[in-house]
Amino acid sequence: MAVALKAPTHLAPVPGVRLSTCAAGIRYRGRDDLLLIDAGPDAAIAALFTRNAFCAAPVQVAREHLATGSPRWLLINAGNANAGTGTLGLDAARATCAALGRTLDVPAQSVLPFSTGVIGEPLPVERIEAALPTLVARLDADGWMAAARAIMTTDTVVKGVSQTVALSGGDVTLTGIAKGSGMIHPDMATMLAFIGTDAQVDADLLGQLLAEAVEHSFNAITVDGDTSTNDAVVCIASGASGVTVPPGPDGERLGAALKALCLELAEAIVRDGEGATKFVRVLVQAARDRDEARRVAEAVALSPLVKTALFACDPNWGRILAAVGRAGVDDLRIDDVGIAVNGVGIVSGGGRAPGYTEEAGQQAFDAAELEIVIDLARGPAEYRKYTCDFSYDYVRINADYRS
Amino acid sequence: MAVALKAPTHLAPVPGVRLSTCAAGIRYRGRDDLLLIDAGPDAAIAALFTRNAFCAAPVQVAREHLATGSPRWLLINAGNANAGTGTLGLDAARATCAALGRTLDVPAQSVLPFSTGVIGEPLPVERIEAALPTLVARLDADGWMAAARAIMTTDTVVKGVSQTVALSGGDVTLTGIAKGSGMIHPDMATMLAFIGTDAQVDADLLGQLLAEAVEHSFNAITVDGDTSTNDAVVCIASGASGVTVPPGPDGERLGAALKALCLELAEAIVRDGEGATKFVRVLVQAARDRDEARRVAEAVALSPLVKTALFACDPNWGRILAAVGRAGVDDLRIDDVGIAVNGVGIVSGGGRAPGYTEEAGQQAFDAAELEIVIDLARGPAEYRKYTCDFSYDYVRINADYRS
Repeated sequence: MAVALKAPTHLAPVPGVRLSTCAAGIRYRGRDDLLLIDAGPDAAIAALFTRNAFCAAPVQVAREHLATGSPRWLLINAGNANAGTGTLGLDAARATCAALGRTLDVPAQSVLPFSTGVIGEPLPVERIEAALPTLVARLDADGWMAAARAIMTTDTVVKGVSQTVALSGGDVTLTGIAKGSGMIHPDMATMLAFIGTDAQVDADLLGQLLAEAVEHSFNAITVDGDTSTNDAVVCIASGASGVTVPPGPDGERLGAALKALCLELAEAIVRDGEGATKFVRVLVQAARDRDEARRVAEAVALSPLVKTALFACDPNWGRILAAVGRAGVDDLRIDDVGIAVNGVGIVSGGGRAPGYTEEAGQQAFDAAELEIVIDLARGPAEYRKYTCDFSYDYVRINADYRS
Repeated sequence: MAVALKAPTHLAPVPGVRLSTCAAGIRYRGRDDLLLIDAGPDAAIAALFTRNAFCAAPVQVAREHLATGSPRWLLINAGNANAGTGTLGLDAARATCAALGRTLDVPAQSVLPFSTGVIGEPLPVERIEAALPTLVARLDADGWMAAARAIMTTDTVVKGVSQTVALSGGDVTLTGIAKGSGMIHPDMATMLAFIGTDAQVDADLLGQLLAEAVEHSFNAITVDGDTSTNDAVVCIASGASGVTVPPGPDGERLGAALKALCLELAEAIVRDGEGATKFVRVLVQAARDRDEARRVAEAVALSPLVKTALFACDPNWGRILAAVGRAGVDDLRIDDVGIAVNGVGIVSGGGRAPGYTEEAGQQAFDAAELEIVIDLARGPAEYRKYTCDFSYDYVRINADYRS
């Protein structure tokens, strides 16, 4: 059950970018599970990958091709993560790139492979290979919605956003899609996002803008604290609009739009989190620096005790305060800490806030969307983390998945 | 439901140490909830407390009295943690020490207070005060079993161990009790352990032996990663046996016995963990140093995805490997990692071990007690962590507790 999340009704084409999908039968039946994206001949591409040391074969190959080649083609499959597959998995990922290279008569290094799905199963290369001619024939600018559907695994809602950004040289389009429903899914691995714009952006600047956008969005969400083996976020700038984006005000404007788009996709992943019944923003403010604010936000957002209390609509502030206390912040004076939920002051001076009533607390915790504000009263820094609650369904989904 | 955990049938008296319990009606009805321990006039006392910055009032007062006084008396209540209670809570903790001081005609600083139970409620000082004459009158060497029962909150099984240790000067007794059923209980806060010996040990040496024992036992267990506001482990050496324990072989022998006793109590807490259906040892070996071994063990032992798979008896090694991969170990080559569960080799070379069968894996994961051995193949260090699985009952217990 997703928390207040609706599928987009329309995703705007991005001039210069073409997409196509088809049903290759990799694992699912009766649905598209293979996606091809053509970034166009002059595109700049920026990508960020999982920091998990146990990264999947396609992540390793995509990194190689980004470092050594001039990638233009993205080949994405759902249903099989090609992770935990050893050298056979690497061979398989390379084989799909080589096959697409032969089909298109381009170097294998111009293809970036992405996979999401079950860990530890061999990738059925031949099924992917057989589908490539169909994929290539179907490439079309209007394929974003079908693409968003084709990369879903256990997502319950299609995730995509389009925006128009006014720059000094004219308007540009931004469209992004994502899949994910848990930082690591059962053995579905896990979060992928593909974003396109027709702005003309230098690859270095695009990389900077993407890194900053991801830091405040995809890197600020957690469902269960696990990081997948396959996570990837890719941004394509086709340049087809002819609107150049120099550093400075235009760069900042595009960066802000990219950040907002990434945040909307990231929030959609949390809202569709496994078993989620609550969408929760944890804002830690007045910290000495961003790092300690982040540590406190993570301790609260990851605490199973806080998350089960949220599921139960229980205004159990002792659990939140205990999580703040164990976050490992130097010299934290708990007597200075204040906590408010949806505007209701709950904790001040290390204990229950004066004037707090169980009724007001109950009303705050009954909401489907909560903002928990934690004030450390010791500095200028803040950090925002996005999470969901921990429900029976989380256990059911994760315990039953393979049986 | 505790995993293969039985209450002790007998706990040996520790010469020089007397105990008494009574029903003060602090929160529970029809059971003892207040415990007094007399360490004796010549005892050395060592204590370790929670590292949570949000530590409870009794922890703060006990630390003060250890630093400034010569403690002999331990006053412990169950049902109310006296945490999150601000300055009123500190006043309450001091008032109970002062009241016992008046009853015994000793300084308040010779009393160490401990509380466990609900967070955020005022401590009913007058009920404790009213019970003190009865407590003092009942003091007896044979009170360990009643003491173990009196400190329980939501524990389902009484936890206690006795041992005899042969030292060069003669035999000494070690008896310990503990309570706890989750690193942080719902809002029950949380783990307490009291250990007595009639050995004659210098306070500094006792502190060293206790610190080392706790590091390998109470600090190596996790149910849900939360650390309580009230955790305390206390070791009393009454000296009544007249057997002195100098540093060297005798100190090592006593230390080894103390470590074994602490480990048995710590394991009992995990076996009685909230909703636990499995008892799990995670051994990380062949790490470069103990710290990286610990980080890997914790990533695995805390992963909700690993823990729900354990609950489901699902040999889902991809989740274990993914947790190893995200533990933040520098330059970890996942291709070198091996994983075995109860002797069944599951992962080698970054993928499924040759010869592994689902049947063998299933048999290993069906056991109620699992040992997960993770071999990093890069050094001499190891670390052992003890945990349990993550079940529907964990969510039920923690979501329903206050309603």
